[in-house]
Amino acid sequence: MIKIVSKNLIKEDKVEEFKKLMKELVEKSAAEEGNIHYSLNVSRDNPRMFTFVEFWRDQEAIDKHNATEHFRRLVPMMRDMREDSDLTIMTEVEF
Amino acid sequence: MIKIVSKNLIKEDKVEEFKKLMKELVEKSAAEEGNIHYSLNVSRDNPRMFTFVEFWRDQEAIDKHNATEHFRRLVPMMRDMREDSDLTIMTEVEF
Repeated sequence: MIKIVSKNLIKEDKVEEFKKLMKELVEKSAAEEGNIHYSLNVSRDNPRMFTFVEFWRDQEAIDKHNATEHFRRLVPMMRDMREDSDLTIMTEVEF
Repeated sequence: MIKIVSKNLIKEDKVEEFKKLMKELVEKSAAEEGNIHYSLNVSRDNPRMFTFVEFWRDQEAIDKHNATEHFRRLVPMMRDMREDSDLTIMTEVEF
């Protein structure tokens, strides 16, 4: 399993538009065959800080996701609405 | 549900000790009654960057977790092994 955490600080005047657009991205991404978990979350101490938490079966599932119509249309729109971002791509530690 | 993402850059000479200690924290935390998901993950592009991904039922579950013997003993040891950190506490966006 591959996990992605994508943290995005959204511009103050774009927060409502961002939430409206991301509803479709969340619903369609969560419905993808290789997705295990997909959620959009808002920080408790900052109503402009939005974090996608994503669990994917494998790299093939992520590659397919990145090629979907909803990803290619909505993610660039999201990028235009943010001031700052931090992306973490990771695998679970094997003990 | 409350989600926590805790990103920790571990000092180079502490990585092996960190992983050994965190095995106990991960196992005991995941077994807590109010825990939904608890994992330790390592970044694909940085073998010293470790991220805890945690899903908790509610604030009461987090308060109980923070008061456990394993949290109180192991988390301060982890803090001594890190160079940098970023903590995100969040709730799912309601569309």
